[in-house]
Amino acid sequence: MSYERDNIRSLDAYTPGEQPDRGDVIKLNTNENPYPPCEAVMRAIGQVPADALRRYPSPQAGRFRQIAAQVHGLSPQQVIATNGGDELLRLAISVFCNVEGEPSKRTGIGVTEPTYSLYPVLASIHNTPVTSIPLNADYSIPDSFAKDMVSSEVGLVLVVNPHAPSGRLEPVEKLLAIAETLRGHAVLLVDEAYVDFAEIDALPLLDEKHELDNVILLRTMSKGYSLAGLRFGYGLGHANLIAALDKARDSYNTNALSQAAAAAALEHRDAAATSWQAVIGERQRMGDALMSRRFMVQPSQTNFILVTPPAIAGGQRLSDADAAADLYQFLKAANILVRYFDHEGLRDKLRITIGTPQQNDALLQAIDDWLTAGR
Amino acid sequence: MSYERDNIRSLDAYTPGEQPDRGDVIKLNTNENPYPPCEAVMRAIGQVPADALRRYPSPQAGRFRQIAAQVHGLSPQQVIATNGGDELLRLAISVFCNVEGEPSKRTGIGVTEPTYSLYPVLASIHNTPVTSIPLNADYSIPDSFAKDMVSSEVGLVLVVNPHAPSGRLEPVEKLLAIAETLRGHAVLLVDEAYVDFAEIDALPLLDEKHELDNVILLRTMSKGYSLAGLRFGYGLGHANLIAALDKARDSYNTNALSQAAAAAALEHRDAAATSWQAVIGERQRMGDALMSRRFMVQPSQTNFILVTPPAIAGGQRLSDADAAADLYQFLKAANILVRYFDHEGLRDKLRITIGTPQQNDALLQAIDDWLTAGR
Repeated sequence: MSYERDNIRSLDAYTPGEQPDRGDVIKLNTNENPYPPCEAVMRAIGQVPADALRRYPSPQAGRFRQIAAQVHGLSPQQVIATNGGDELLRLAISVFCNVEGEPSKRTGIGVTEPTYSLYPVLASIHNTPVTSIPLNADYSIPDSFAKDMVSSEVGLVLVVNPHAPSGRLEPVEKLLAIAETLRGHAVLLVDEAYVDFAEIDALPLLDEKHELDNVILLRTMSKGYSLAGLRFGYGLGHANLIAALDKARDSYNTNALSQAAAAAALEHRDAAATSWQAVIGERQRMGDALMSRRFMVQPSQTNFILVTPPAIAGGQRLSDADAAADLYQFLKAANILVRYFDHEGLRDKLRITIGTPQQNDALLQAIDDWLTAGR
Repeated sequence: MSYERDNIRSLDAYTPGEQPDRGDVIKLNTNENPYPPCEAVMRAIGQVPADALRRYPSPQAGRFRQIAAQVHGLSPQQVIATNGGDELLRLAISVFCNVEGEPSKRTGIGVTEPTYSLYPVLASIHNTPVTSIPLNADYSIPDSFAKDMVSSEVGLVLVVNPHAPSGRLEPVEKLLAIAETLRGHAVLLVDEAYVDFAEIDALPLLDEKHELDNVILLRTMSKGYSLAGLRFGYGLGHANLIAALDKARDSYNTNALSQAAAAAALEHRDAAATSWQAVIGERQRMGDALMSRRFMVQPSQTNFILVTPPAIAGGQRLSDADAAADLYQFLKAANILVRYFDHEGLRDKLRITIGTPQQNDALLQAIDDWLTAGR
């Protein structure tokens, strides 16, 4: 006897990247920041009094909301704090997309192909369909994207920018054009999980002069602020959209500790910015080093790079796809985890998180071993 | 232009009890434990290393799950950790109840009337209907309850036991009979948020000899463990049900800090048990004291009491409902918050959380003032 809904029964759950317990593994597979969170964050956690744990937390993370509004030049009503960026994604899908069978229009999400692999899983959990449009060969968004989404009558369009897993950054003008085409038809959520490592962000979309009532930006403390373990993200957008999301979230969706830590992290973002510069520098170095080893390297504005290994290793010719899978396994045996996607268009590639200089050197050494060693 | 689904647009969001920032308020309105969490919990939080925040947390709260399984004599596959009990409720509704318009049977939740006021709000967010059956006058569950729920073809029955807002505890035999009638038709979730203050729990329902594949128990660290600010709850139940819930939760739904604190709290539950005994003692004292003041007091197995104030205050005769609303306002003006429900069958009553002896004395003093003062 199964009691769950059909869509849950048939669901292939999302597979997060491996999270080994062992300390001797070099983890370059889940895009964590290689540097620890700043001292001020640890102090803020240590200073949360027992009484703040005894009582219910601020339902809307009031203090964090104030700080985020100030940092981004918005009003608090344009900010929602969530239990990781994941919760914001789930909320947006459940609030803006009708379920299959519901009478109204605006069913389903619209995404690019490829995109962050969690989106279609969240759509399945909500039992809403996915409209997927292939990116151009250079991972840019096709010009017809927004119009096609309007035709498909989706409720929510999810665009990760900078893009995962390619690392490509679309210019604000392009996002603006997409939002304008979608206005009156669908909400556009720009997932800026990696924005701290990019040259520009999508905040100009929220400028009142554009009169966009259908834009939400997703931010997370996981990557830029070295706080993946904290589960804290937030959304920025039109106050009406934020209010709708706010109605649907769990009553107390973030906790007293994560609120205090996230507030401290945002207040001390200069400390985090030091890590962004270090990662950007290493990203350049690693790209150059891998290109000199005959890897194809996709230009990246994130803390990872998508690379295509050369199809020759240890003097042996492999198919393109075999080379990536082979290198993935080779690195894993050497205690270095990177991300391999068994997914069309990605089977010849690896996504590699930028680590510390020492971790990156170890990776290059292991790659050199793979390139030269007989297998 | 509204982009949200119709059910969200028309939703009356859940109103949590007031959470004033001011420290001089005696808060007896949201059933928090009046005693702080134990030292071991605070130590565990302080010992979470920066690197555990930098990395993603254990997706299933592995260590906590092990400890909870051991404490309750179950397997880890029978335990799911959630971001507060609220998340478990939301998950159960979204996993076991079809949305209006979906073709399959098993749509909607079944609840008693009255019950925890969050349940119907969560059902509305999911856009699934509510079947509600009135409790008997003594807040016991009618004998026909489970059969009526089977006829209504609900997917999930939510029973809070001990009951909120009355405090009444149903015996295990009654829950067992309900679960057996529902088996093959619907899942029974027994919300044991207040179980730490009760004489018995519903764990015997999970005994294999009953062969119940449709039972989930909800536990929370918010009340018994003085950790409402931590947002940590968990579900216990048949491994198939837990697996279904697990597929639908956010990938990393609890954070590194809350996992560490919750594990420490459960490991040191003897410390928490001291607070349970103190609360139970004060509950008895407060019940007696209020009965001696001509209040009607519902017997309680929780950390609150539901009371009906006498309809005479300050020498003036009030209607029953006016008396409760009047006392609520009187107490609020005296910086004491209790809970008033503007809800059929409850308008003549107040729900009062059991506080420390000092807080309870202050409440009694204020009530005496209300009873005697001219208004």
